[in-house]
Amino acid sequence: MKSTLEQESHSNRFEPVIERLKQIVGESYVLEKLDEVESYGKDTTPFRKRPLAVVFPGTTEEIQELVFLANKEKLSLWTVSNGKNWGYGATVPLRDETIILVLERMNKIVAVDEQLAYAVIEPGVSYAQLNLYIKEKGYKLWCDTTDGPPGGSVIGNALERGIGETPYGDHFGNLCGLEVVLPNGEVMQTGGGASGLSKTWNTYKWGTGPYLEGIFSQSNLGIVTKAGIWLMPEPEVFVSYVFELTDERDFPSLIEMIRRLALQGVVQTKLHLINDIVELALMTQYSGELLTEGDCLTLDHKIKLCKQFGIACWSFAGGIYGSAQRVAADQTVLKKELAPFGKLTFITDAKAWQTENLLKLIGPGSLFNGICKDAIRQIFGKSIELLEAVPKIHAILKGNPTEYFVRHAYFKSQVKKPDNDIDPVRDQCGLIWFAPVAPLTSKHVTEVLNLCKPLFEEANFDFYVALLLTNPRSIVILLSILYQKENEAESIRAQALYEKLCAVTEAHGYQQYRTGVAYMDRIMNRSPKYKEIVNLIKTALDPNNILAPGRYGLG
Amino acid sequence: MKSTLEQESHSNRFEPVIERLKQIVGESYVLEKLDEVESYGKDTTPFRKRPLAVVFPGTTEEIQELVFLANKEKLSLWTVSNGKNWGYGATVPLRDETIILVLERMNKIVAVDEQLAYAVIEPGVSYAQLNLYIKEKGYKLWCDTTDGPPGGSVIGNALERGIGETPYGDHFGNLCGLEVVLPNGEVMQTGGGASGLSKTWNTYKWGTGPYLEGIFSQSNLGIVTKAGIWLMPEPEVFVSYVFELTDERDFPSLIEMIRRLALQGVVQTKLHLINDIVELALMTQYSGELLTEGDCLTLDHKIKLCKQFGIACWSFAGGIYGSAQRVAADQTVLKKELAPFGKLTFITDAKAWQTENLLKLIGPGSLFNGICKDAIRQIFGKSIELLEAVPKIHAILKGNPTEYFVRHAYFKSQVKKPDNDIDPVRDQCGLIWFAPVAPLTSKHVTEVLNLCKPLFEEANFDFYVALLLTNPRSIVILLSILYQKENEAESIRAQALYEKLCAVTEAHGYQQYRTGVAYMDRIMNRSPKYKEIVNLIKTALDPNNILAPGRYGLG
Repeated sequence: MKSTLEQESHSNRFEPVIERLKQIVGESYVLEKLDEVESYGKDTTPFRKRPLAVVFPGTTEEIQELVFLANKEKLSLWTVSNGKNWGYGATVPLRDETIILVLERMNKIVAVDEQLAYAVIEPGVSYAQLNLYIKEKGYKLWCDTTDGPPGGSVIGNALERGIGETPYGDHFGNLCGLEVVLPNGEVMQTGGGASGLSKTWNTYKWGTGPYLEGIFSQSNLGIVTKAGIWLMPEPEVFVSYVFELTDERDFPSLIEMIRRLALQGVVQTKLHLINDIVELALMTQYSGELLTEGDCLTLDHKIKLCKQFGIACWSFAGGIYGSAQRVAADQTVLKKELAPFGKLTFITDAKAWQTENLLKLIGPGSLFNGICKDAIRQIFGKSIELLEAVPKIHAILKGNPTEYFVRHAYFKSQVKKPDNDIDPVRDQCGLIWFAPVAPLTSKHVTEVLNLCKPLFEEANFDFYVALLLTNPRSIVILLSILYQKENEAESIRAQALYEKLCAVTEAHGYQQYRTGVAYMDRIMNRSPKYKEIVNLIKTALDPNNILAPGRYGLG
Repeated sequence: MKSTLEQESHSNRFEPVIERLKQIVGESYVLEKLDEVESYGKDTTPFRKRPLAVVFPGTTEEIQELVFLANKEKLSLWTVSNGKNWGYGATVPLRDETIILVLERMNKIVAVDEQLAYAVIEPGVSYAQLNLYIKEKGYKLWCDTTDGPPGGSVIGNALERGIGETPYGDHFGNLCGLEVVLPNGEVMQTGGGASGLSKTWNTYKWGTGPYLEGIFSQSNLGIVTKAGIWLMPEPEVFVSYVFELTDERDFPSLIEMIRRLALQGVVQTKLHLINDIVELALMTQYSGELLTEGDCLTLDHKIKLCKQFGIACWSFAGGIYGSAQRVAADQTVLKKELAPFGKLTFITDAKAWQTENLLKLIGPGSLFNGICKDAIRQIFGKSIELLEAVPKIHAILKGNPTEYFVRHAYFKSQVKKPDNDIDPVRDQCGLIWFAPVAPLTSKHVTEVLNLCKPLFEEANFDFYVALLLTNPRSIVILLSILYQKENEAESIRAQALYEKLCAVTEAHGYQQYRTGVAYMDRIMNRSPKYKEIVNLIKTALDPNNILAPGRYGLG
C-alpha cells in the first residue's frame, strides 16, 4: 500500500486515512491510484480536479463511519449518487484533495406501495433500475425519468432539483421523506414526525414543525441515504403528442399559449420546447455526415440540414393522462389552440409500436434502409432519423428511460454516437449545461434568448436551446455549449462563453435553476444576505466544514 | 404612563421597554393595560396566557426595530398575522410576559400579476380583502380560501400550512417568494436569487441553492413580512358537486375511491369529508332548538336530528374546473364511480343562484318560511338549513370566503349563532382543534377514527370529524372538541381529552399536520433528533431566542 501511495506521489499525510477508509468500506471499495481516481475528476466540461480517493460505501452505517472519520481528520467529502450529472460536473469535486463518495452500491429499492403510489429507495437506484423493477413486479405505476442517462440516480437528480417529463417531473417536489446522515454522523428522518414511526413519512411532505427537506437540496448539509418518491398510477388512457411550429415569428405567441395551457391544466407534462440545433445534435454529428468547415454551422448550412432531416424551428412533445373522456377533452383543446400555429401529431401506443416495427424493417442496419430513406422523406416529409424519435418520445412520457436523447452530447465529438452504452465523459464529448430560469412570458423568454444568442454567435458556438416547462409560471432556459474537447482553444472559448452567460443573465435578474460545479463557489455572490444565512446554518450543522465545502456557496 | 403601569401591576422593569415600543410604532399602536391585553391571551381553547403588551407595527422597518430592541433587552416576541387562528391558539402566546406582534396593519396588496397568476401581499391581507380587491380590479383570477374566518390572514394560514378548498388549497405549497425579517433584524428574500433582483421570485419556488422557505413555516425563525401567492386563473367552466353517502358501511370503500380519484386527478379540490355532527353544528346549536339533557347528543337524539335536517352520515363537496369538455369528462367519471354509493348533486352557477334567490323568498326571516319549511322537506328530502349551505359551498369552491362555516363554533355556546360578525372568542365559544394526518387508505383512516372515537365517548363529547384531502396520498383527520366554555368541569374535560388524543395518535405513529399553542412545547418530543437539528438552526439564527420561544418545539 505504502509503495503504491509513494509511487502515485500521494502525500504521506493521507496514508493512514486511506487505510481507515479501507477498513470502513472494504479494500476493494476504495480507489486511490492516480489512474483510477483521475477519471472521477473529469466531466464533459473543461473543469477538472484531482480527487484524493474515491470511496464506495455500501450502507448508511459505513457513511456514518466515513463522516466520523472526516470530522476527526478534517477531511472534505464530496458525495455523488451515481455520478451521471454530465455537463454540470458529474463526479468532479469543487476542490482538489477531496474524498469522493460514490453511492452507486447503495441501490436497494426498500419498498413500493402500489396503493399509495410511492417507492422508498436508496441513492444508487437508477431510473432504469426502478422502472424495470416496477415492471417486473407488475405494479400499475409509472416512474418519471429525465431524458438524461438511464443510469442516473433518481434521488441524486431530485436533490439537484432536476426536471423530468411527466406530470411528476418536478423531481424535488415529488420527494417525500428523507433519511439523512448529518454532518455530525447522526441519522435523521425528515418529516418532523416521531423518528421511524411516522406513518405519513412518505405520503405527507410537510411533516410537523419547520419543513426541512428543502435545505438538503442543492446544498451540502447532509448525505441523503434514503428517500420516498411519489409515482404516477398507470392512467386509463395515455396519448402523447408532438407539435412543430411552422413559422418562427409565432414563437412569442407559442410561449404565451404554453403558459395558458399549463395554467389551465391542459398541459401537465414538463414540455421541452427545443430548437433546431437540439434536434440536429440528436440526429447527426460533426464528425459524421454533418460536415462543416467552421467551428459552428452557418445559417445556410443549418437551413439545409433542417430541410434534409425535416426539422422544425421549434418543436415540443407532451403527454395526456387520464380517463378516455378526459384525454379526448384535452385533445380537443390542444387541437383548437395549437393547430393554427403548426403541426400537431397525436401518438397512441399502437402508433408508437407500428413506427418502431416499421423502423426495424427499414431503419439503419436494415437492407431496405437505403431504398426506403428517400421514400419515407417523400411520403412523410420527415427523415427516418426523425421518425426514430417518435417511439422514444412516446416511451419517455410514460417514464421509460432511454439513452437515445443523451446522444446529442456527441454532436462535436470525434467518437461516433454509440447506439448504446453512451458515456460522454469516456468518449471525450464536450458539453457544458447552462440553465437560467425565467417567468413564463414571451417577454422574459425572449429577453434571455436575446441576451445569450449573440454571446454564442460571438464565440462561434451553435445556439442549442431547450425550454423546460418547470411549472405553469416558470420555464428553464436550458442552453448547451457543445464543443470539441480535444481542441484546447475551443475548450477555453467554451469556458469563457459559460462565464459570460452566467454574468450577463444574473445581471439581468435571471437565476440559475441549478448550476455546474465550476460555478458553485460563485452562485450566491449576488445574494449576500441569503448566503450569510445559509452559511450560519452550514456552520451550525457542519462546524468542521467536512461536507462538500463550497457547494452552492455553502461552507 | 408610569402610574398606568403601576396601576396595572406591570413590573417596572418593562416600563422603559413599553416606552421604546411606543417610540417605534407610535403610541396608539401599543396596548399595555391589563384589560386591553387580556383578550389577546384568550382563544376558544381553555389555554390562557398573560401578554406583556400588544404591538401593531405598520412597516417592515418597524418590525426590524422591534427585533433589534428584543435582542438588546432579551424580550420574547410572539407574532401573529390577523390573530384568527381560532381553536389552535389565536393570538395566545406560549408563555407569559411576551410581547405580541399583530401584523394586521401591514395589509398592502403589493402586486397582482394577472398573466402569471400570482399576488404579492403583506401578512395583514385577509382572504376577504384579497378576494374583493381582485374582483374590484376585474382580474380573471380566483384566490383560494379556507372555510375559516374571511378576516383570516392569507400568509398566516399558509405559514401554518393550512388547507383550503380549491386545487390551490395547499396554502404553503402555493407560497412563492418570501421577505423575512430575521432574528438579527436583517431583511432577507428567499429564493436564493440576487436579492431584490430575481425575476422568478414569485414564479419559481425552489430558487438556487438550498430551498429555505420551508424553515419559516410552523416555526419561529423569522417574521414573514411579504409573500408571493399563486392564484388560479378563472376557468372556462366551473361546476361544484355535493356527495352524500347512503350507508355508513360503505365508508371504507368511499375512502379508497377518494384516493383513486385524487391520484387520477379527477378530484383536485381539497375535499372535506364531514360527518353528521359537523353538519349539525352548522345547522343548529345546543342553546337553540337543539335541546339535550346530557353533555352530548345521545345516538337516538342524533339520528332524530339528522332525519329532521336531512343530514347524511358522511358527505363532501368538490369542484371541477376547466374547459367545457374537461368538466363534462370528469362529471362522467364521478357519476360512474360515486353513484352506487349515494347521492351526487352537481351545482352550476345558475343552480346556486336560483337556490340563493329561493332562500331569500322562503328562508329564515321571510314571511313564507313557516309554511315552506315542511314543503321543502317533503319535496327535496332536505331542510331549508341544508339548502342554505348549497350556494355557500359553491361560492367557497370558487375561493369566496364566508363566515357561514365558522358558525359551527357556536354549537355549544350560550350565545346565538350570529348571521354575521362571527367571533367565537368574543362570544365565549368552546372549541379545540386536533388534526393528525394519515395515509389515505381506509385502513389508516379507520384506525385513527377507532382510536379517537372512544375517547370522545368516554369524555362525553360529540364526535366531530372532517377529513381534509391534503394531497392524493394523505388526509388530515380534523377533530373538533366543542365544549361549553362557561362550564369549568367541561373545560377541564375538554383539555384532558385533547391531551389524550395527542398521546394516543402519536403513539400509533400519526403526526399532527399543525398543532395548537397549548401543545407546541411538546410536539417534537417523539422526534428528538429532528428537534435537536432544528434547534441547532434556531440557535444559529436566533441566539437570544427572542422569536416565539418554544413554538413548535424550537427555542
